[in-house]
Amino acid sequence: MPDPAATLANLPTTVHELRSTVAGDGTVTLAIHETDVPAPGPDEVVVRIEAAPINPSDLGMLFAGADPESATSVGTADLPAVRATIPSGTSGLAGRLGRPMPTGNEGGGTVVAVGDSDAARALDGKVVGFLSGTAYAEYRTVNVASCLPMHDGTTAEEAAACFVNPLTALGMVETMKLEGHTGLVHTVGASNLGQMLDRICRADGVPLVNIVRRPEHVDLLTAEGAEHVVDSSADSFFDDLLDALRATGATIAFDAIGGGHLASTLLTAMEKVASEGDQFSRYGSDTHKQVYVYGGLDRGPTTLDRTFGMSWSIGGWLLTPFLGRIGHEGATRLRTRVADEISTTFASGYGMRLSLADAVDPEQVRRYGRVATGDKALITPHA
Amino acid sequence: MPDPAATLANLPTTVHELRSTVAGDGTVTLAIHETDVPAPGPDEVVVRIEAAPINPSDLGMLFAGADPESATSVGTADLPAVRATIPSGTSGLAGRLGRPMPTGNEGGGTVVAVGDSDAARALDGKVVGFLSGTAYAEYRTVNVASCLPMHDGTTAEEAAACFVNPLTALGMVETMKLEGHTGLVHTVGASNLGQMLDRICRADGVPLVNIVRRPEHVDLLTAEGAEHVVDSSADSFFDDLLDALRATGATIAFDAIGGGHLASTLLTAMEKVASEGDQFSRYGSDTHKQVYVYGGLDRGPTTLDRTFGMSWSIGGWLLTPFLGRIGHEGATRLRTRVADEISTTFASGYGMRLSLADAVDPEQVRRYGRVATGDKALITPHA
Repeated sequence: MPDPAATLANLPTTVHELRSTVAGDGTVTLAIHETDVPAPGPDEVVVRIEAAPINPSDLGMLFAGADPESATSVGTADLPAVRATIPSGTSGLAGRLGRPMPTGNEGGGTVVAVGDSDAARALDGKVVGFLSGTAYAEYRTVNVASCLPMHDGTTAEEAAACFVNPLTALGMVETMKLEGHTGLVHTVGASNLGQMLDRICRADGVPLVNIVRRPEHVDLLTAEGAEHVVDSSADSFFDDLLDALRATGATIAFDAIGGGHLASTLLTAMEKVASEGDQFSRYGSDTHKQVYVYGGLDRGPTTLDRTFGMSWSIGGWLLTPFLGRIGHEGATRLRTRVADEISTTFASGYGMRLSLADAVDPEQVRRYGRVATGDKALITPHA
Repeated sequence: MPDPAATLANLPTTVHELRSTVAGDGTVTLAIHETDVPAPGPDEVVVRIEAAPINPSDLGMLFAGADPESATSVGTADLPAVRATIPSGTSGLAGRLGRPMPTGNEGGGTVVAVGDSDAARALDGKVVGFLSGTAYAEYRTVNVASCLPMHDGTTAEEAAACFVNPLTALGMVETMKLEGHTGLVHTVGASNLGQMLDRICRADGVPLVNIVRRPEHVDLLTAEGAEHVVDSSADSFFDDLLDALRATGATIAFDAIGGGHLASTLLTAMEKVASEGDQFSRYGSDTHKQVYVYGGLDRGPTTLDRTFGMSWSIGGWLLTPFLGRIGHEGATRLRTRVADEISTTFASGYGMRLSLADAVDPEQVRRYGRVATGDKALITPHA
């Protein structure tokens, strides 16, 4: 075993990170800051971060609802920054006003220094993925419990996105089973998460309806092997959805869009299928229909027409409470599967790679702020 | 014991009932029909119905979403009827097209003939409330399991509303406890149901926020002894609501209105109170906030602004599945309490009394179709 203190001595004393600050004037500034690398405590390790994805769930902390189109350069040549305006103002953001918040839910890299505990020493030199909320940085000191060690041969880039999307996709299938449903709907089928979910469902024999928002995404998913793909931009959307619901029996949906009529349409279609052949009931079918909103690609209000009887529910879904619900044993089971299948089932694809400086370039901000399918960004701080 | 057959022989062979028929032309007709009184099976009794309330939950079967303002007289002098137009058409009503549906969820009366079983014989001559979906009639043959026998001295009018509102109000408190909340919000505080709920909560020490829609309803409820009454028509509504939520810790609401922004406002206010003193979290507080929609006084869409973090849920709530959830023992406990307190906690008040013929009079339809607080209708077929 190497001497942890000796390894730590080889690290730079000043490293770079991205922090996001909301000001009282209704702007948000994402800036490169300098920070140090604290020596690891007994249960901690230092990770040299080689890759960290920009997931849709990172954008809230990065830009606080600001309009990417309003992004302009600020800061210095050494410590560049980008500033944008928050159209809805700072109400609801009081807790972060004036505080430079760390960013980046997850990342991947190599453990370059370790604490004294057996758990920490076991990670020495390993490629790990980690979940910390601080991943947009060159180095981080993180708890071993936040790390998922990879098998030999896995790259840091493969490890970078091993928490948020894989556990969310697995969590959807687990939630479906826990709540007594036998098929599910996902509203952003062509996303990285959507493709992962489709691979999981095919492997596990779980009927899945993939909703996509463009005709070319039907081809993309179908080429991957997806069975039920429905294009929400098609005139025949509602009828196509009914057919897919009939074929799958799906009565639970996970929706990343949030705003608009989609959740209502899903519930209405599920109710229509559930009522087929039933006697008339003034309260609708007895089939419980569930939509979980886990994202907000459309930040506008959710409109529910309530044309779906009385057996329905819509609510927020978050990974952390879900992991609490399944307990340590359940979470370990899911993490083990992710590590085992990180380069197959749980592989992610990226459309752009960014240095920390690129990540605060207004033009790049406008591009990755769009969250376009197939154009996912990966921050590579040492590339 | 009297001979059941002899009692039955004294009943009229032809009696009157109200049935509602939706036609393919988008109209609904509520009409007096003639029917017979079947001899009771072993577990059945015949009830002479003296009173049956028109609850908001009856209106869907009576008028299928038709506009009461469009009501016109049809039918004959002997068998009068009223017809109205359904603005949204007959989609979703296919199951009842052309079928004269019985009406009236519940009623009260005297048992005038009984079946052979001990359970049926035990009800002979008793005043009972019953839940049948067929209560707008002069006589009905119903199962003993659908009857709640009253203590001596209870009138049929007192018994008439012993199921829907009492069990719904008790069900709200039970649901609150089952789901781990410690205080609740009710959005139609001044209704018969609301006043019942307030009495239950005061007796049981459950913190309750009563929302009312007019200033005079604040006075009405306060005079009854209600502690937290908030007027949604006041400019200070949101601040008043925050104060009441702080005082009660309520994190679950039962909403009879359904449409509009109220559910969203409730979730937003609950989240604001739950976040007070918390550190900033991009996903909002960990406090789970629940709204159950159990009615649809506003039939328009429900608009959710999603300004309340990720720990929230909104869904339909119905009495029947709730009773299934608490099982036979739980339901018996609630029914016993209702019978014991029918003239106090569970007393209802009426603003109008209607014969069957009055119930199909267009002017009366327009009045009871409004569901105005304090103007509840009671059908008294023999008065």
